[in-house]
Amino acid sequence: MKYLLEISFLGTAYFGFQVQKGKDLPTVQGTVQDAVNAVFGRRYPVTGCSRTDRGVHAKQFFVTVDPGVDRITIPTEKIPTAMNAALPDDIAVKSAVTVPDSFHPRYTEMEKEYIYVFDNGGTRSPFDAGRAYYVPRPIREDLMDEAARKIEGKHDFTSFMAAGSKIVDAVRTVKSCRVRREGDRVILTVSADGFLYNMVRIIAGTLLAVSDGRISPDEVTDIINARDRSRAGSTLPPDGLYLNRVTYF
Amino acid sequence: MKYLLEISFLGTAYFGFQVQKGKDLPTVQGTVQDAVNAVFGRRYPVTGCSRTDRGVHAKQFFVTVDPGVDRITIPTEKIPTAMNAALPDDIAVKSAVTVPDSFHPRYTEMEKEYIYVFDNGGTRSPFDAGRAYYVPRPIREDLMDEAARKIEGKHDFTSFMAAGSKIVDAVRTVKSCRVRREGDRVILTVSADGFLYNMVRIIAGTLLAVSDGRISPDEVTDIINARDRSRAGSTLPPDGLYLNRVTYF
Repeated sequence: MKYLLEISFLGTAYFGFQVQKGKDLPTVQGTVQDAVNAVFGRRYPVTGCSRTDRGVHAKQFFVTVDPGVDRITIPTEKIPTAMNAALPDDIAVKSAVTVPDSFHPRYTEMEKEYIYVFDNGGTRSPFDAGRAYYVPRPIREDLMDEAARKIEGKHDFTSFMAAGSKIVDAVRTVKSCRVRREGDRVILTVSADGFLYNMVRIIAGTLLAVSDGRISPDEVTDIINARDRSRAGSTLPPDGLYLNRVTYF
Repeated sequence: MKYLLEISFLGTAYFGFQVQKGKDLPTVQGTVQDAVNAVFGRRYPVTGCSRTDRGVHAKQFFVTVDPGVDRITIPTEKIPTAMNAALPDDIAVKSAVTVPDSFHPRYTEMEKEYIYVFDNGGTRSPFDAGRAYYVPRPIREDLMDEAARKIEGKHDFTSFMAAGSKIVDAVRTVKSCRVRREGDRVILTVSADGFLYNMVRIIAGTLLAVSDGRISPDEVTDIINARDRSRAGSTLPPDGLYLNRVTYF
């Protein structure tokens, strides 16, 4: 038996989710492990559903906590409150359930949804610093959405993968890729069965190039087919990126 | 001629708006003055529309910048961009206009609207840390709104003023005082011709006591009439407080 914890975090203060071996950097995983130690009295292994980069946020994220054969006396429903008392303000546990030992939060089949948030309210918002990517010029969300829909479907996304990635199979199925405006914010939402390294940040940069008129919406299909990272737009900063939803099948 | 700048700021890092004499503490006013120095080459006086406490935010706030008899060569419409380049991420200038020398941003007749934001989504949100007041138990926004409406009107608000304030005349006219829920957030909105020290945070604490059943909505009228600070609820933390709108007449 393991615990599956649903968490959320503001990534600004962290060097990503994953503990980096040999480096003493603040990570979400390390911080959750410290809280596990405080609550359970032992450093039971904490495993995440995804790697995330420095400064990336998660509205929904899952971790397992594996107590092995130990008997845990704390009732499962009390774990969120206990963990939240031990965690800093920028990480919270929303729920806890038990799952079989065989459950792995990363290698279980799942769909993930990311959002990328642009701050496009004329002047930059002090409330969006570190939480959205500020674009001073007016964004054409209609053009971005038109281009975004061409990313939907099963494709080889080599053009949207960080150069130098060691992934052999870059085929992923993007279930939905859409752009909408909500007041001063423009929001890109992408869901898929899996993501390549920096994929959403490169999609965001490519769609911004479409908004700016440097790439036409139709050209996005050519960029996908080229399987060439240099054809797509730039990798936007992590500030606007949120893991928004994780659904296990 | 003076400049009137519309600004907004996240107050978390500041000891309030006002520079505190003899203390080397970060303030919004001091930070804006540094930016004025960088942009105009001189420390022209910066005057704010309101005092704010440590950790309080402003979605809309006005300051004047007074260059005296100096001739300013920078076009007024370029001032926001120039100031924003010199300001940290948590303060932004939204617009700049010129006003007569006689204009004072604080003593000109105005209406101010504050909001107080409660985080009431079950578990605390990492995205609301420092930006909302987390209440773990379910808030009864219906009862709070019923009580809030009794605060509307022209009253002596001594009961809702920080004890020890030197204000002689505590009569203020509250134009509107309402509470509503928006998803996981409960929002108190109060507009008035003027506010006493800690008035909104004490109103928020009193309404939360109503939600908790410790004060009945009808009792709020008695609390106003008592003119006694000890009758009202506690002063809630600054985290949830935003100066939301300032309207000059």
